[in-house]
Amino acid sequence: MAKQRQLKLGALLHGVGGGTSMWRHPDAQPDASVNFGLYKQWVQKAEEGKFDLIFIADGLYINEKSIPHFLNRFEPITILSALAAVSKNIGLVGTLSTSYSEPFTVARQFASLDKISDGRAGWNIVTSPLEGSALNYGKKEHPEHDKRYRIATEYLEVVRGLWDSWEDDAFVRNKETGVFFDPEKMHVLNHEGEFFSVKGPLNIARSKQGQPVIFQAGASEVGKNYASKEADAVFTGHEAVEDAAAFYQDVKARAAGFGRNPDEVLIFPGISPIIGGTPEEAERKYEEVASLVTIENALDYLGRFFEHHDFSQYPLDEPFPELGDLGKNSFQSGTDKIKRDAKEKGLTLRQVALQSATPRGGFIGTPEQVADKIQAWFEAGAADGFMITAAVPNGLEDFVDHVVPILQDRGIYRTEYESDTLRGNLGLPVPENRYSKAQTVAVRS
Amino acid sequence: MAKQRQLKLGALLHGVGGGTSMWRHPDAQPDASVNFGLYKQWVQKAEEGKFDLIFIADGLYINEKSIPHFLNRFEPITILSALAAVSKNIGLVGTLSTSYSEPFTVARQFASLDKISDGRAGWNIVTSPLEGSALNYGKKEHPEHDKRYRIATEYLEVVRGLWDSWEDDAFVRNKETGVFFDPEKMHVLNHEGEFFSVKGPLNIARSKQGQPVIFQAGASEVGKNYASKEADAVFTGHEAVEDAAAFYQDVKARAAGFGRNPDEVLIFPGISPIIGGTPEEAERKYEEVASLVTIENALDYLGRFFEHHDFSQYPLDEPFPELGDLGKNSFQSGTDKIKRDAKEKGLTLRQVALQSATPRGGFIGTPEQVADKIQAWFEAGAADGFMITAAVPNGLEDFVDHVVPILQDRGIYRTEYESDTLRGNLGLPVPENRYSKAQTVAVRS
Repeated sequence: MAKQRQLKLGALLHGVGGGTSMWRHPDAQPDASVNFGLYKQWVQKAEEGKFDLIFIADGLYINEKSIPHFLNRFEPITILSALAAVSKNIGLVGTLSTSYSEPFTVARQFASLDKISDGRAGWNIVTSPLEGSALNYGKKEHPEHDKRYRIATEYLEVVRGLWDSWEDDAFVRNKETGVFFDPEKMHVLNHEGEFFSVKGPLNIARSKQGQPVIFQAGASEVGKNYASKEADAVFTGHEAVEDAAAFYQDVKARAAGFGRNPDEVLIFPGISPIIGGTPEEAERKYEEVASLVTIENALDYLGRFFEHHDFSQYPLDEPFPELGDLGKNSFQSGTDKIKRDAKEKGLTLRQVALQSATPRGGFIGTPEQVADKIQAWFEAGAADGFMITAAVPNGLEDFVDHVVPILQDRGIYRTEYESDTLRGNLGLPVPENRYSKAQTVAVRS
Repeated sequence: MAKQRQLKLGALLHGVGGGTSMWRHPDAQPDASVNFGLYKQWVQKAEEGKFDLIFIADGLYINEKSIPHFLNRFEPITILSALAAVSKNIGLVGTLSTSYSEPFTVARQFASLDKISDGRAGWNIVTSPLEGSALNYGKKEHPEHDKRYRIATEYLEVVRGLWDSWEDDAFVRNKETGVFFDPEKMHVLNHEGEFFSVKGPLNIARSKQGQPVIFQAGASEVGKNYASKEADAVFTGHEAVEDAAAFYQDVKARAAGFGRNPDEVLIFPGISPIIGGTPEEAERKYEEVASLVTIENALDYLGRFFEHHDFSQYPLDEPFPELGDLGKNSFQSGTDKIKRDAKEKGLTLRQVALQSATPRGGFIGTPEQVADKIQAWFEAGAADGFMITAAVPNGLEDFVDHVVPILQDRGIYRTEYESDTLRGNLGLPVPENRYSKAQTVAVRS
């Protein structure tokens, strides 16, 4: 009998939250975004729940309108490395932008995290949606959307090349003969491309999972192709199961089109479960957090998706304003959706702003109700796993304590880790070193 | 009665060692440079010995002639962050080059490490001595020595400005009023200089030590001025106490010349103690390690200081070859010294190579002998503290177990940490935020 297909889980650790006001909740720790003790507690809770991974998002530009979490938070590489030292099995995934960094440094930092954690690192590749980032990096202008993806493609090619600088058996370390490494198994990349020129080799070897796992979250056409071609796992977000299933099928089909095994591209919709002892209690928890958001907060929050556009200039209770191309070069797929929804549903600015600042989500209810919905999406072919974001204080704790046991009882979620690497738990193969592979092929033929 | 002046101690954690062959020793762990368990053990040992700090050195270019430790090692930001999670009081200092990085990213990563460790981060600023680094960063050429220091000067100005983006009381986090931060206490840097243009603000606030501690190791004229003007602490290296004292006085005088309090620039010579139960046992330990070095290893090692020059082309037992300007644009002060010594002492190439690959140092003997010498240097005004490098396996353990108690008995070294920040233990003041300071001055006048 074939083994029941297993659900994967990740947790977005997001300090005081991705919205404007959760920090005001009586149970919230308002310094959460820079509280290492709390991050440690969260990663250990997620590990108790046998999660595949935790994820740290990022951004490279703030102004006085940014949401609280973005103003003052840990940088991903540092917090992931610190968390590696206080966890054992869970994957450690972080965002890093290919538009404002150097491939040699980024390859090194992720490889080093991968080695420190003994095979648990993952990199969520972003191209930086915010125009303002350019100003922090001495650039005249933010590269346009499609060019950012061309840069990202070449960037990843360089990084993967550097990661393979050393074959897995290159370090001989023979005390008798004095041979530390086999020079035949050290490889110089000598990359010369359109955007990058990087010699190599990298000064760190591969971990036991071969290479860090690549995550991506692009949802535009260019973004979806990039994810389908390059990523091991894709973060996404949908309200309706039909939309999620359509996205799922689309990405898997594109992956197959690129000659890949579709089972090796895992799709993770993000959800924000709110759990209560009764449906009413869960609903009350949502209302409690939603009531903390002021209309000013909500307008600022909405503005961020549109290059920090000032929405306070428009009347609140009239139809959502006409914005032309605004937002096209930042969060393209997100801003398109907001505009489309507003038009189709005839929403006012106030409605759009409040909905975007406190999205209700559909995973609100008792532990059984939430587990049912997760199972339904999973079995409908809408997800390989889910990224859990706490929408209320203690949201992660509630999920691990109350929903995880139900998923385990139903046989769709692990009770023990299968592996101590991220690839191992995700069921992804260890990528063979490109140079060993070349030799294997040469010998075989 | 004035309190006895207290010695400071740091440990260079250096994997399989800074030489070519220590990894071959029977007691050595030959994978030490990528063994997190061992680094954790070392940092905890150093903390048991009440050390002020551990230090992770770095480099951005390798080739097949590089020493074993350089080929495959942890990247500093990642390993320091991981060590922050498994230590409590000790300072965490790492090298990062201003020639091949972005100030916004570097300011963030050190600030984040500083926050994760709750005030224990330090940054050793280097300008990258190796020409080859340029090839890993898509640069046509490595900037020349003095230009690298001009870049480093502006770079540090930017980073310090970013670190002060938020005044210490900027984050109000008042749940009642909904005020998360005071916009008057957020500051936009708007730096526009010769090499960098960086807007700010940084998306992380200061730790309780204010800013990470700045270390420097420049020994050329330009380097010494930079260190005296900018650094909180200086790493150096001398064989004779007279030379160390002259350097010490020189840097302190230069610091005073720049209007600084000379007590706020600490001088740390590096030493490699080898401890034995008897003088003979210590001597035997040295010989044992020195005997592992082959002449081929030694020539490669020497070559690295001279831009990976191939010394195997010269006769071994004739006077050290004439090299002209070679080495001037890499480790300038080091290569000058090698050339000068060889000429003055009439050394052959073989002698120079073996000496440079297995420097004997002067801190070899019984615990009392080593403690005597440390005390003598300290009291002669040649050091505020020392950086300890293990020259034999278990060198750090021997030092902590046998030399530290003697220094403590003599009242020149702490028995308990005075503070849980690096600045606190080093006796350095917390730098006031530049914007709070400006206001204080304005109010006073």
